[in-house]
Amino acid sequence: MAPKQVKSFPSVPLKDELDIVIPTIRSLDFLEVWRPFFEPYHLIIVQDGDPTKVIKVPDGFDYDLYNRNDINRILGPKASCISFKDGGCRCFGFLVSKKKYIYTVDDDCFVAKDPNGKDINTVEQHLLNLKTPSTPFFFNTLYDPYREGADFVRGYPFSLREGVPTAVSHGLWLNIPDYDAPTQLVKPLERNTRYVDAVMTIPKGAFYPMCAMNLAFDRELIGPAMYFGLMGDGQPISRYDDMLAGWCSKLICDHLNLGVKTGLPYLWHSKASNPFVNLRKEYKGLFWQEEIIPFFQTLTLPKECDTAAKCYVELAKLIKEKLNHIDPYIFRLADAMITWIDAWEDFNPPAEAVPAVANAKKDAVPPKKSK
Amino acid sequence: MAPKQVKSFPSVPLKDELDIVIPTIRSLDFLEVWRPFFEPYHLIIVQDGDPTKVIKVPDGFDYDLYNRNDINRILGPKASCISFKDGGCRCFGFLVSKKKYIYTVDDDCFVAKDPNGKDINTVEQHLLNLKTPSTPFFFNTLYDPYREGADFVRGYPFSLREGVPTAVSHGLWLNIPDYDAPTQLVKPLERNTRYVDAVMTIPKGAFYPMCAMNLAFDRELIGPAMYFGLMGDGQPISRYDDMLAGWCSKLICDHLNLGVKTGLPYLWHSKASNPFVNLRKEYKGLFWQEEIIPFFQTLTLPKECDTAAKCYVELAKLIKEKLNHIDPYIFRLADAMITWIDAWEDFNPPAEAVPAVANAKKDAVPPKKSK
Repeated sequence: MAPKQVKSFPSVPLKDELDIVIPTIRSLDFLEVWRPFFEPYHLIIVQDGDPTKVIKVPDGFDYDLYNRNDINRILGPKASCISFKDGGCRCFGFLVSKKKYIYTVDDDCFVAKDPNGKDINTVEQHLLNLKTPSTPFFFNTLYDPYREGADFVRGYPFSLREGVPTAVSHGLWLNIPDYDAPTQLVKPLERNTRYVDAVMTIPKGAFYPMCAMNLAFDRELIGPAMYFGLMGDGQPISRYDDMLAGWCSKLICDHLNLGVKTGLPYLWHSKASNPFVNLRKEYKGLFWQEEIIPFFQTLTLPKECDTAAKCYVELAKLIKEKLNHIDPYIFRLADAMITWIDAWEDFNPPAEAVPAVANAKKDAVPPKKSK
Repeated sequence: MAPKQVKSFPSVPLKDELDIVIPTIRSLDFLEVWRPFFEPYHLIIVQDGDPTKVIKVPDGFDYDLYNRNDINRILGPKASCISFKDGGCRCFGFLVSKKKYIYTVDDDCFVAKDPNGKDINTVEQHLLNLKTPSTPFFFNTLYDPYREGADFVRGYPFSLREGVPTAVSHGLWLNIPDYDAPTQLVKPLERNTRYVDAVMTIPKGAFYPMCAMNLAFDRELIGPAMYFGLMGDGQPISRYDDMLAGWCSKLICDHLNLGVKTGLPYLWHSKASNPFVNLRKEYKGLFWQEEIIPFFQTLTLPKECDTAAKCYVELAKLIKEKLNHIDPYIFRLADAMITWIDAWEDFNPPAEAVPAVANAKKDAVPPKKSK
């Protein structure tokens, strides 16, 4: 009885619909293992740290690479909203992309195998997740009802079986789990070996820790909310870039009746970051999240906010007003959120003229390298 | 960093803590396949339909069997709240049990195998689910954080890692999925072959379709909310007995900060019920659920309701007041909900005197058969 919109992946890999965004500080040899899956797509590489360092990209990939000088040149004073020396700089790639979908992946992540030993095509699964509806208003106990061999179970309201558009697809990690520094310290040897063969919608009203290691989303629907904050160099906090984007995007998805899915696809996370370094980066966040998350859980946005960008501006104001007692940093963060939306709209104007204007801008300030 | 309360199942099968409740109309040969797992426990068999029919129970099981005459004798006029000719009669077994936990299972369900070919001990997994906390306030993307090899991921608030007591463990089904009549009609050949190796908490505020085929719960915490309604003989509706209990128990768990888990364990559901018969039974429910579920989704209970029984009485009043326009049946249902709580409290008085009084009652009116 379910509207089965996409049951199997189309033969065309939809290369005109998706960009892959990779933040990095090193040469991208890791792309070799991804070649069969990533080669059809355009890559947006955001080079963090020293812009004079040369990042090697394996032959045959279609990519643009932006270093800090490029970001400063392209965004001008608005470049202040893009983090430096932090993976959060990746959101610059979301902003300059012209595609409907983004897949962002970390450079210490590799292709995982499914239980049958087959290499997992993360892009394919993310696109399948994004192109099938979500079901945030009622939980389906057999998980994603749009998946082959599954459906809505007895007692699922028929009026809700059409679902809503999916805005976010949050993939998971085999091997090194995404733990915070305290858990890393306590469980240095823990590895994730459990392949859970499920995709599910996170219900409306429920928040989750969104990790950017293996994340895809619909730029048109939720792009403006995928701001990765002010982290790293000159800021009191790091490693909360994706968490911030997760809180904001989930709140806004719930407000706009858009769906967030989590589960498949898995990738292989190879490198545990240093827990002592992480503890220093996360330290303040461990306290702040105790206050920020309950704040998000009780927030409602005004009805007039009917786009992700409008919601985001409103949210920035509320954060500035209600959370500023936490730390003076909150003022800077909230201002940066507004700057981000300004920059976003420069490159992605809300009107019909999106591609033209944005492309013109981009053409005027070409990235450093392109193949 | 998570408080790991139960990581592996204790060697004792906790036979003094759990009863198995089975509603049936036929001889219970199906118990043979469950023997290794069910034999340590006391069974409460609720015989539906013709009370003169002899139900055969395989040798070696410890059980009480109650037929309609027993129910009428034991509950007196309050027996009117127990459904006749409907699986909903099973809730009588919940009421007369003296154990902390209930596992209820249908007699067309058999032992399933896990992906390694090992027989799944559903009782063990349900007890593990019930004896480890739930996490309803924030979604953990690696699923049950209390499971071996898993934990809370980065960004999970530390103040929430203690979790809350688990009241309900909802298990799933391989082979015949629990579909409604329209879906059965449309997909007669669909079988569930996907073993999803996960247990998860259904977030606070989210509702789900609770199926009683493979269900366990904590009687002390949520028993009064596990009323299976007035269904079957003389009523305009069937097959919504577990749905009603699911809506009510989830609302009350959310109100009392108790957890509801779904996922493992799987059992093997062998027999698809006749979709035409089911359509007749469900027909009105397919319409009514469109109104009843949104009603539950917006309901809040008063703070003074601090036990499941108090919540349930309040809920019965609200249903009578706010949903009576749906059908005159709603009046009868709400009255039966109150009668149920009266009967529940006769057998399970809220005071310390629970076992004494209840046992006295039970001793005065022994069930028909006992081994």
